[in-house]
Amino acid sequence: MLTDRLIKKIQETRAPIVVGLDPRLGQIPEYMKEVIFAEQGKTMQAVADIFFAFNKGIIDEIHDLVPAVKPQIAMYEQYGAAGLECYFRTIEYAQSKRLFVIGDIKRGDIASTAEAYSEIHLGQVNIAGEIAVTHTANYVTINPYMGYDSVEPYLSDCKKYDKGLFVLVKTSNKASKDIQDLLMQNGQPLYEQVGGLVSKWGEPLIGEMGYSAIGAVVGATHPQEALTLRKSMPHTFFLIPGYGAQGGNGKDLAGLWDGERYGAIVNSSRGITGAYQSGKFATVEKNFAKAAREAVLEMKKDLEAYM
Amino acid sequence: MLTDRLIKKIQETRAPIVVGLDPRLGQIPEYMKEVIFAEQGKTMQAVADIFFAFNKGIIDEIHDLVPAVKPQIAMYEQYGAAGLECYFRTIEYAQSKRLFVIGDIKRGDIASTAEAYSEIHLGQVNIAGEIAVTHTANYVTINPYMGYDSVEPYLSDCKKYDKGLFVLVKTSNKASKDIQDLLMQNGQPLYEQVGGLVSKWGEPLIGEMGYSAIGAVVGATHPQEALTLRKSMPHTFFLIPGYGAQGGNGKDLAGLWDGERYGAIVNSSRGITGAYQSGKFATVEKNFAKAAREAVLEMKKDLEAYM
Repeated sequence: MLTDRLIKKIQETRAPIVVGLDPRLGQIPEYMKEVIFAEQGKTMQAVADIFFAFNKGIIDEIHDLVPAVKPQIAMYEQYGAAGLECYFRTIEYAQSKRLFVIGDIKRGDIASTAEAYSEIHLGQVNIAGEIAVTHTANYVTINPYMGYDSVEPYLSDCKKYDKGLFVLVKTSNKASKDIQDLLMQNGQPLYEQVGGLVSKWGEPLIGEMGYSAIGAVVGATHPQEALTLRKSMPHTFFLIPGYGAQGGNGKDLAGLWDGERYGAIVNSSRGITGAYQSGKFATVEKNFAKAAREAVLEMKKDLEAYM
Repeated sequence: MLTDRLIKKIQETRAPIVVGLDPRLGQIPEYMKEVIFAEQGKTMQAVADIFFAFNKGIIDEIHDLVPAVKPQIAMYEQYGAAGLECYFRTIEYAQSKRLFVIGDIKRGDIASTAEAYSEIHLGQVNIAGEIAVTHTANYVTINPYMGYDSVEPYLSDCKKYDKGLFVLVKTSNKASKDIQDLLMQNGQPLYEQVGGLVSKWGEPLIGEMGYSAIGAVVGATHPQEALTLRKSMPHTFFLIPGYGAQGGNGKDLAGLWDGERYGAIVNSSRGITGAYQSGKFATVEKNFAKAAREAVLEMKKDLEAYM
């Protein structure tokens, strides 16, 4: 089962780390942009090609260190059809390097619509009886606000295609408190109730290592809340955003780990892919991927120190 | 301001109706599919071209009757980059026929990511100093679960580009109760608290007609809940899904209307675009668009009867 394999890969690499591939033009070396813009002009396709070249550079340098990458689809969708094609190309390339891919899509819609999203992002697209060649992530993130029937189509595809989900529970941003922290009649904050639902939805998909293919997104920026959720969701694997650029660190995550099973994977995006631009590993543009490698090794040390 | 113009257009057409453009292969006339599949094979691009031909047929027949259309992006995204391009092409074509477009994208993510979504779906995409030619909707739907900072980038673009939002409050699906109906400490269901936030977020964008550019999604399938929200959100324009195929009818909506200002727009998708396939307006495939026209006229009558 998928999450068993993810845990094994985390054990092999000893790095419960997922590298966020959220390319932005401002973060990409000038020399890469110059070459492609000169060839193609400032087009959507040119941006897509720049993003892919950058992602490839990062993946080539870090694929032996970490188990997974997480492309944020918005960064690609921003550049229309060409951008979306680059998102799928990135998935394909990462998987060819034996990385698990978490597609950060945060979709959420009624059942008939969720089916369409699930087909292209996790399952298979059927065109009047013929299966199209597509490149689907291993996991996707989804938004639970619309309830069980909006999640069910993904659950079916997870079972059918050995895929997984990370469902938003307590997100890393400051204003996550606006709705997620609202107190319910029983005194619990909403995110705990959502956590309870996510646990329940994941029950039929618990693997040999004790964790379900249906995980939860729990921000590193809310250590206390994360700890409460860790205790109340013992079979739910956590995807933890908010490390690094958003403010979370290894110390904040102490107490979340579950020995050799880990139980969580921590994302860092800008802190790794933008490491060449500033801070401890700042270096010349040509070494952007090497700086990313150094940043991964540093993050690994920081996490290990509090495990 | 956008919502003033939408209300004027509703007044002109006397139809507070938005036609959902959610194409599915199973709902498209065989003759349209046969021609394009024969030419191109069963490819993603072929599906995109079929969808566009179908949408064009519908738009050509109904653009004088209604103020707006609502493409559901999932139906297009299901077919990858080619599908997404068809989504934007549909927006462009509908706007060329003077229809308002509500892009049903239901995105929701942290601020830096929301900026990317907002640029491509509402604002402008800037490629290293050059503005790309894109076709953006007039409104998009968004998911509020992540709180204010996940919404703020859209609000800025609404102000800057005269655009609008419909934020999910109480959705039309059955399981919307799982989270949206949870009771809070003050005895209110969550959706009412979310409604309060949406009202507040919309305050700076209230137009001359008294309604904000920041609207709310409130399902026709929950008439009592909708009525409560109508009273507590007097400056919030409603987008009402769930009419027709999902079970809502004109009677359910009685009490929601606000005289000549309407205050709401009701979506029907399959009930209109699939009218040729079954029910009262079932007819030969070639007349699919005429059946859609009949279905719009019937829906108009049904709504008027309870206004």
